[in-house]
Amino acid sequence: MGGSIFGTNFRVTTFGESHGPALGVVIDGCPAGLELSEHDIQIMLDRRKPGRSPYTTKRKEPDKAEILSGVFEGVTTGTPITIVIQNKDQKSADYSNIAEVYRPGHADYTFDAKYGIRDYRGGGRSSGRETAARVAAGAVAKKLLSKMGISFSTYAMAIGPISVERSRFDLNEMMNNPLCMPDPVAAEDAMEYLDSCMEKGDSVGGVIECVIKGVPAGVGEPVFDKLDARLAYAVMSIGAVKGFEVGDGFVSSLNTGSVNNDQFENISGTVYKKTNHAGGILGGISDGSEIIFRAAIKPTPSISKEQETVNKAGENVKLKIKGRHDPVIVPRAIVVVESMAAIALLDLIYGGKNSRI
Amino acid sequence: MGGSIFGTNFRVTTFGESHGPALGVVIDGCPAGLELSEHDIQIMLDRRKPGRSPYTTKRKEPDKAEILSGVFEGVTTGTPITIVIQNKDQKSADYSNIAEVYRPGHADYTFDAKYGIRDYRGGGRSSGRETAARVAAGAVAKKLLSKMGISFSTYAMAIGPISVERSRFDLNEMMNNPLCMPDPVAAEDAMEYLDSCMEKGDSVGGVIECVIKGVPAGVGEPVFDKLDARLAYAVMSIGAVKGFEVGDGFVSSLNTGSVNNDQFENISGTVYKKTNHAGGILGGISDGSEIIFRAAIKPTPSISKEQETVNKAGENVKLKIKGRHDPVIVPRAIVVVESMAAIALLDLIYGGKNSRI
Amino acid sequence: MGGSIFGTNFRVTTFGESHGPALGVVIDGCPAGLELSEHDIQIMLDRRKPGRSPYTTKRKEPDKAEILSGVFEGVTTGTPITIVIQNKDQKSADYSNIAEVYRPGHADYTFDAKYGIRDYRGGGRSSGRETAARVAAGAVAKKLLSKMGISFSTYAMAIGPISVERSRFDLNEMMNNPLCMPDPVAAEDAMEYLDSCMEKGDSVGGVIECVIKGVPAGVGEPVFDKLDARLAYAVMSIGAVKGFEVGDGFVSSLNTGSVNNDQFENISGTVYKKTNHAGGILGGISDGSEIIFRAAIKPTPSISKEQETVNKAGENVKLKIKGRHDPVIVPRAIVVVESMAAIALLDLIYGGKNSRI
Amino acid sequence: MGGSIFGTNFRVTTFGESHGPALGVVIDGCPAGLELSEHDIQIMLDRRKPGRSPYTTKRKEPDKAEILSGVFEGVTTGTPITIVIQNKDQKSADYSNIAEVYRPGHADYTFDAKYGIRDYRGGGRSSGRETAARVAAGAVAKKLLSKMGISFSTYAMAIGPISVERSRFDLNEMMNNPLCMPDPVAAEDAMEYLDSCMEKGDSVGGVIECVIKGVPAGVGEPVFDKLDARLAYAVMSIGAVKGFEVGDGFVSSLNTGSVNNDQFENISGTVYKKTNHAGGILGGISDGSEIIFRAAIKPTPSISKEQETVNKAGENVKLKIKGRHDPVIVPRAIVVVESMAAIALLDLIYGGKNSRI
Repeated sequence: MGGSIFGTNFRVTTFGESHGPALGVVIDGCPAGLELSEHDIQIMLDRRKPGRSPYTTKRKEPDKAEILSGVFEGVTTGTPITIVIQNKDQKSADYSNIAEVYRPGHADYTFDAKYGIRDYRGGGRSSGRETAARVAAGAVAKKLLSKMGISFSTYAMAIGPISVERSRFDLNEMMNNPLCMPDPVAAEDAMEYLDSCMEKGDSVGGVIECVIKGVPAGVGEPVFDKLDARLAYAVMSIGAVKGFEVGDGFVSSLNTGSVNNDQFENISGTVYKKTNHAGGILGGISDGSEIIFRAAIKPTPSISKEQETVNKAGENVKLKIKGRHDPVIVPRAIVVVESMAAIALLDLIYGGKNSRI
Repeated sequence: MGGSIFGTNFRVTTFGESHGPALGVVIDGCPAGLELSEHDIQIMLDRRKPGRSPYTTKRKEPDKAEILSGVFEGVTTGTPITIVIQNKDQKSADYSNIAEVYRPGHADYTFDAKYGIRDYRGGGRSSGRETAARVAAGAVAKKLLSKMGISFSTYAMAIGPISVERSRFDLNEMMNNPLCMPDPVAAEDAMEYLDSCMEKGDSVGGVIECVIKGVPAGVGEPVFDKLDARLAYAVMSIGAVKGFEVGDGFVSSLNTGSVNNDQFENISGTVYKKTNHAGGILGGISDGSEIIFRAAIKPTPSISKEQETVNKAGENVKLKIKGRHDPVIVPRAIVVVESMAAIALLDLIYGGKNSRI
Repeated sequence: MGGSIFGTNFRVTTFGESHGPALGVVIDGCPAGLELSEHDIQIMLDRRKPGRSPYTTKRKEPDKAEILSGVFEGVTTGTPITIVIQNKDQKSADYSNIAEVYRPGHADYTFDAKYGIRDYRGGGRSSGRETAARVAAGAVAKKLLSKMGISFSTYAMAIGPISVERSRFDLNEMMNNPLCMPDPVAAEDAMEYLDSCMEKGDSVGGVIECVIKGVPAGVGEPVFDKLDARLAYAVMSIGAVKGFEVGDGFVSSLNTGSVNNDQFENISGTVYKKTNHAGGILGGISDGSEIIFRAAIKPTPSISKEQETVNKAGENVKLKIKGRHDPVIVPRAIVVVESMAAIALLDLIYGGKNSRI
Repeated sequence: MGGSIFGTNFRVTTFGESHGPALGVVIDGCPAGLELSEHDIQIMLDRRKPGRSPYTTKRKEPDKAEILSGVFEGVTTGTPITIVIQNKDQKSADYSNIAEVYRPGHADYTFDAKYGIRDYRGGGRSSGRETAARVAAGAVAKKLLSKMGISFSTYAMAIGPISVERSRFDLNEMMNNPLCMPDPVAAEDAMEYLDSCMEKGDSVGGVIECVIKGVPAGVGEPVFDKLDARLAYAVMSIGAVKGFEVGDGFVSSLNTGSVNNDQFENISGTVYKKTNHAGGILGGISDGSEIIFRAAIKPTPSISKEQETVNKAGENVKLKIKGRHDPVIVPRAIVVVESMAAIALLDLIYGGKNSRI
């Protein structure tokens, strides 16, 4: 089946391996008439670029977006938009040991089990680099959504065991620290914690929260294609994501109905919810309040600490992963989560155009 | 778009409203040659039937499965299988107040916002009754999977704040209590907690865990159609589910890479993982160990406690929901979660038949 | 894969065998707000009902439409519409010989080759009866299209070698003869020809033409999902159809560009084409003129003339098909062709809502 | 919706405009383990290359295939294969007049009606150049099919009114004339006819026939996704195709059942059909004999003869199309028809893997 295509009415096809000639995306279903430049895409791509802090890989990935089709004289034409990112800094030598050894926490073993062959260089198709293509598509989706008044705030809610405190929450603060945490105290603590983990050659995970403003009531289909189900599908398809929750999520399972239900009220002619435990979705359909969800990010599996594993010949071996790896993937994954949410949301908005005669 | 179809190679279309003439499912893509009877489906349907304990609605839903097509002389023919469940105990009068008032936590408001019209009787299409159709399809999926040696254990891991303790975990115990908890002590505590909530006219949520045994390595597609992403999509499409996690899920975000990575070892010629923090999925592809995931279930939104809300005319009103409602949906939702997991898994297995030449 | 689902935004799933309990259709993607009754569907179903002339089977097929879901108080709700037709006149005994012998021109042999099992009663899933479900869906599609000012004229253009002459073409005449030919002379000749074929126990084919009025310019997608490609797909999926052409079709291949090109002209501010060799489609997109296509219908394969064939055991045998068969399927297939065209067209219209920002 | 994606299990996404930076294709669903080189693709691309005879455009289109992803060390890896063709000979100036004038027979008017904007250079997305991407995908599909023993013969059956005579049919002859006609006499006549049309600044159409050998019985789904329906969909999606027929096609509509039915016989243990009027498909499923279909190709709409038309400002104008155009598209379209047939067939074969338990 392949599985590299997402969406029905706004369809995104990604392609490319970490160390092949290029990776990219084809977007089928972008309307005509949107002003779109490579710069629009570059801004989003730069948000996942490494090298901006001690907490990201030192690998250089210029990740320069190039538009191959679908844009004419600066405006989309309604035909497929193809965005390609050439792979430049391909030090294949760094990765030669992966060819024979299954790295714990990576897809080396499962790719071999599935395909019998794999492009082992830098993880090939299972590399985090694949997400650059998603971000390029996300840039287009977000620009289309912004025309409808829909905007995103996405940030690190936790780094390892260090969480943002709601009482200190300040969205502007996320610009002021390399971990993108909207809480200066938590950011400070998290950096300290991260430093100590890095010293031990270890890595860290975290939680990303995304808030979507401006979604009108009525988006999402009532049964399988619920808005939360499609968001979960989109976000869980990012390699490092191990959990997804909307609104109060797992916490709602601890509460009673009287606490968890959001009561409605009419204030000067508009229906509001007094609270938003539901995260803006009722019965799979947006209710007009903010859409809120969180994604659990696992710690980077590439660690320099020695690990036990098995090689292709089946021998038990020890492995120390060398090279340039992110000790925490959360800051760079933020824009990927946001991109997938934008793609999933836009696809549902387009698909929902025929809900009334 | 509709959104009532799930899957690509094993495609399930559900239809029907809570109080319409019938609800049901069409399965397109079931292979020929499977022995299938209405009894096979009934066994699964009976697992979501109410009335078996004080903790489920007293509504009678005989939910009798009737096969309309696709089975000839007791064997599937490869053509669409249609299973219909007639709606019998339709006390429409009970629900007349819903017609005008938006119940908090329900889809009344969002359906009206989306469609401008809604079958309000018993929640119509957004009723939990819709899941009976999913379970009927799940029965077929599970029977096909069992031929491949794949089996499911699904149970309540928590009811409200009361959790199963791993040290007391005993799968057989789940048969011995109406809450389906595999821990007799937790079950006892949970029932007590539930009783006290019911007295206050309140409701409770919980967590369902599902373990899938026998899935060979190699199932799932590497990018968007990852096994965990499709499971998340399938399970989050169940109305009451607000969160999904695979393996250690949100807990993995707290751990370091050296703790979270599952190291490989070769024992007498077979590759094993020493641990299973990943929940049996690496890079979106099954790794041969058990698939483990959890779903967070919100407390039943229908409570008899008085709530504030708004009616269709926009007036602020007070609402006490009468009638027959589950104080906790977890025990009946277990088979729904299992069904959706089976459908999603089977669809990926069928779609993955062409991964090697 | 199954293959019993058609469409993306207006999705039609048919199910059911000729002699099973029922056949029917689920429509996913019908907007809310359409007044719809069983009578609306019955009118269309009656157009394919046999028994109205000597040229159709004497089998009684009351084909009573029953709406199971998606309509509330006479109006569609946006949820799946299910229409079921109970099978009544199931004289299974008539068909017992098919169980063992492969009828020439039928799908008996290929079903066995594909599935290893088949519901042989009346052709099972490959029976023409399956098209009743398509017509039920077509009734809904046509009602939605008529709200947009789109209407259909579909008729027999030829019965065997007897063709309508363009000079005598009169649409009203199609009501006046059982063959639905818009030319009284051709109809007379065709009936005579048909009588002589029936005397010999033989059957006849023909050509159906469909003209769609009121389609605005801009419907259809430019590459794979061209309007003509989707119409071809839809119409060629009807069992008896062996050819499809749009506009001048095969005749255009004989002409030169200067003859075949439709020149444009502006008449009082509106762009017209002076001719319509293209059949209303340029580059896969409707151009605002009438959509015109034709379908070639093969002669009914069930003939009472003796034929040579093979049975399941592999023996060469002789076969005389008894029972009640249409000597020509064209008159009853007209509404099926029209239904499939309506479904394909509506699906593209809905999918095209996002072609401009 | 976009409409630039074809297929379910072998999914092909094309992109690119005639005079943009590049065009290409992403194939999602190619199995791992196929040896594949750029040379494999180039061989097919060269079959549609112009400049090999006086009967094709003098435009130089080197059309060099470049593989960007999905192939590692000469072998497919199961991940998306991207093939890009850079656009080189882009004399945009040649096409400047198209920007303002709607060429008869082209998609200029309908693109403007649909999108309000269009890349007019060389026809943009509606250019025949888009089919190069289809051919690249077809090369991969054909290589996969050849591993199953499936092969194609595709040729010109007619050029304008000059048809191949079945009695003179010799497949090898198609190599000996630039029109790819398997009949030397017809080829001679056709060239003469073509010369006379070219002198008048006019163009010519024709008919392409495709024969597929080696398809086992059982391919195709019984209802909407019939093998003939999918072939029709695929082939009618090629811009110049106005008609499609399988087996005897439109001729079958003239015959009686006793002539058109293919009788079965068992010869030394194998079931054969004595004739093949059906073109190898019964009830939408392959019957083990040769698959035969034909496509009607319209005359090239770009002619140098003066035509009347309308410009963007709505004025009635006269147009003489200058530049380099194929006077007949049939010889170059042959490989496109073959490619689309291969893609559609392979997709059904992959989708049909689950027809039996």
